[in-house]
Amino acid sequence: MPVHSVIDGRGLDEAPAPRRDLEPAIATLKRLFGDRASTAEAVRDQHGHGEGWYPTQPPDLVIYPHSNEEVSDAVKICALHGVPIVAFGTGTSLEGHVAAVEGGVCFDLSQMNAVLDVNQEDLDCRVQAGVTRKQLNAYLRDTGLMFPIDPGADASIGGMTATRASGTNAVRYGTMRECVLGLTVVTADGRIVKTGGRARKSAAGYDLTRLFVGSEGTLGLITEIQLRLFGIPEAITSAVCQYPDLESAVNTVIMTIQTGVPVARIEILDEVQMGAAIAYSKLDGYDEKPTLFFEFHGTHAHAAEQAETVKAISDEFGGSAFHWASNLEERNALWQARHDSYYAAKALAPGKKAIATDVCVPISRLAESILETKADIQENGLLAPIVGHVGDGNYHLVLFYDEDNADELAACKALVDRMNSRAIAMGGTCTGEHGIGLGKKRFLEAEHGEAVAYMRMVKRAFDPDNILNPGKIFTD
Amino acid sequence: MPVHSVIDGRGLDEAPAPRRDLEPAIATLKRLFGDRASTAEAVRDQHGHGEGWYPTQPPDLVIYPHSNEEVSDAVKICALHGVPIVAFGTGTSLEGHVAAVEGGVCFDLSQMNAVLDVNQEDLDCRVQAGVTRKQLNAYLRDTGLMFPIDPGADASIGGMTATRASGTNAVRYGTMRECVLGLTVVTADGRIVKTGGRARKSAAGYDLTRLFVGSEGTLGLITEIQLRLFGIPEAITSAVCQYPDLESAVNTVIMTIQTGVPVARIEILDEVQMGAAIAYSKLDGYDEKPTLFFEFHGTHAHAAEQAETVKAISDEFGGSAFHWASNLEERNALWQARHDSYYAAKALAPGKKAIATDVCVPISRLAESILETKADIQENGLLAPIVGHVGDGNYHLVLFYDEDNADELAACKALVDRMNSRAIAMGGTCTGEHGIGLGKKRFLEAEHGEAVAYMRMVKRAFDPDNILNPGKIFTD
Repeated sequence: MPVHSVIDGRGLDEAPAPRRDLEPAIATLKRLFGDRASTAEAVRDQHGHGEGWYPTQPPDLVIYPHSNEEVSDAVKICALHGVPIVAFGTGTSLEGHVAAVEGGVCFDLSQMNAVLDVNQEDLDCRVQAGVTRKQLNAYLRDTGLMFPIDPGADASIGGMTATRASGTNAVRYGTMRECVLGLTVVTADGRIVKTGGRARKSAAGYDLTRLFVGSEGTLGLITEIQLRLFGIPEAITSAVCQYPDLESAVNTVIMTIQTGVPVARIEILDEVQMGAAIAYSKLDGYDEKPTLFFEFHGTHAHAAEQAETVKAISDEFGGSAFHWASNLEERNALWQARHDSYYAAKALAPGKKAIATDVCVPISRLAESILETKADIQENGLLAPIVGHVGDGNYHLVLFYDEDNADELAACKALVDRMNSRAIAMGGTCTGEHGIGLGKKRFLEAEHGEAVAYMRMVKRAFDPDNILNPGKIFTD
Repeated sequence: MPVHSVIDGRGLDEAPAPRRDLEPAIATLKRLFGDRASTAEAVRDQHGHGEGWYPTQPPDLVIYPHSNEEVSDAVKICALHGVPIVAFGTGTSLEGHVAAVEGGVCFDLSQMNAVLDVNQEDLDCRVQAGVTRKQLNAYLRDTGLMFPIDPGADASIGGMTATRASGTNAVRYGTMRECVLGLTVVTADGRIVKTGGRARKSAAGYDLTRLFVGSEGTLGLITEIQLRLFGIPEAITSAVCQYPDLESAVNTVIMTIQTGVPVARIEILDEVQMGAAIAYSKLDGYDEKPTLFFEFHGTHAHAAEQAETVKAISDEFGGSAFHWASNLEERNALWQARHDSYYAAKALAPGKKAIATDVCVPISRLAESILETKADIQENGLLAPIVGHVGDGNYHLVLFYDEDNADELAACKALVDRMNSRAIAMGGTCTGEHGIGLGKKRFLEAEHGEAVAYMRMVKRAFDPDNILNPGKIFTD
């Protein structure tokens, strides 16, 4: 059985869906965009996949717009010819979001990378979609402000908005759902639409902003984002603590959240992942044990008080002495190791391909959910380190398979399926932050049931010809 | 000119919109609901208005469902006969949301008032729509948890969800937008749809939950709400501080927010409102001066530290000594006085009717916005106390008019219009928390422009026959 036949969505062995007038659309766009339009195979291939395991499905053309108006013009051309549109930021998504499953035109927005406006007094800013989170934080360096959402990869703000990204700081600062104040979106007929505003709250009409956040390019192309910012805290302290078993680590997390400590980051690495991190990131002085990474933000006194409270909780569950990252350099090294865990995990199985997946459950079910998943991994003889934003009940698995071994891939996918089903049965979600994309379409139905009919109504109303990232989110 | 002809929406002097088969719908519903269906004039009148200034527009029938299934059955009957549906909670909305401008059936959900589930470990709960916020907090008393959102009135959670309510604690805990995790909604064809879930975050599909939050009964009837809860803080301290002028008070607020102090409440009363509060609520020892009410939540140390920081900021702007509400009784009296400000204001102008309105602006424009509004009030010789959730940039005005004086009403409405226009021009919103209802429909267009077309698309898709609270949010 060829590997491709087991992917969700339109397999490569099937004929592509009928599409209308691709050639004239490409010709017109090439004239319009000149050397900012490419049909080169290497360019198309590079834009046909994210960082997930999904096979490359290249678009027919890649364009690099520079303005809302250029995006609008290009969308109008695609709409006229019925050609699919896929938005592209940094290509770091994990669920096949950018795969051009029906071909069409990839809108690479990476050159729309201006920070348009920073309002220091209002703690907000407006950026173009191609600005990355690290670029934004570098830009903000002298203002005393920060943009806290940190999914690990240096993703574009547009992509983070489109996938409702979150990451390590979300337990304190929220996700893109909470941090986006407003948007500029180019819709399926090329209209340039502004949603939301700069007020911290509003009761004026339907919340279109949150409807576009997490819509994965299927309702419109997000070109500008108004973001909440936060003051850089007076004190930031990081610590690492190791536990005799996974349950003790998870229980420390649960108790911390229930106690209401406003911890900024609380991350788990299981013993497999910790082993990988020690090897890959040269973390000296640690054991291959379940481990928590903490970060505390606040005034000096408040950060210290938070740390003290968490330390007391951790002691109760048999945690080791806190290992403090006392200076900026050590702190950065620590979080870099955390962020590199996907690469560290990959290094455990050289030559193999990796599937990264995530679920999120109510925190009371977190220990049970992780332990059942670990048992499932062991029963199936798979290698699959666990890492997670456990303060939100969100954790990740990386599974490995041999590219030539469809059975191994099928076993990995079956495990992911069971993990999703268990999370949904516990009142959780099949994805806390990666999105539906190609891979979790069936689980969207399992999780949301009848509500999916209403999501489809929105899709049909906003994009009646289904040209915006077709084949994603919804099963056919 | 009769007063009614100046209201927005369908005036009482006009013929009602054509509606189909009202009589058989009423007959069927009366059979189905028995003594939980009423056509009595007093009952219908009571359900034809909220607490706003809008003339009563009674429904033709009021029903009191007890379950999702009963709501669904009744909606199906209304849908079959094309009869308008208006949801009703406690009748405390301010923008005419419950006025039955096209007649029809009022669904009074106040008897769906069960707390269905409290998950202490996960800090969440599920309630029926008719549960009020005070009822919920009384229910939670022994759990150590609280539901913080507090719009003043003891509104139903369903109504608060439908209007995206917020209030005094929103600066710290967010609004209904942030605190609703999921919903059960009965849609226009009677389907019972569940949105969201219990996970703290999810990237699974379109955010229907936030689409229904703030939809004012026009997209579906919200029957159950999954809510975030918070631990009752170890320490809660309240203080009052008075200022030589409004600008100093507002600048204290702005600096507090910009400094990042996680203040739980920061409320302004201008000198007119403070005078009213002193008289109405017997607040002894205060002057008729611009005044801030503060509340600090946290551990004892952290609450004290926050208060100290704010005190230092306040001193810089010439604030008086902090008057501390040291015990629970004094604190409750203080916040009761704050919550009673609408009634206190009304007592300033006995026999007159009141218009309550609100706007919200970026905090950097707050002083300017309030001062321009005060100047406008003075220029027009009106009496209009100001009170506000200023930590969010949100403030309210209460204006008075004589019921028999259409010119006075018109002058009040013109002032509200200018206040809305100025707020929008400053990047703010025409309503921070009251909603659009009947009164702000034109300003929805002014604020959101082209985006309103997409709101209408959602409305048409979800409610093609426009039976759900017709005449609200959108201009005809």
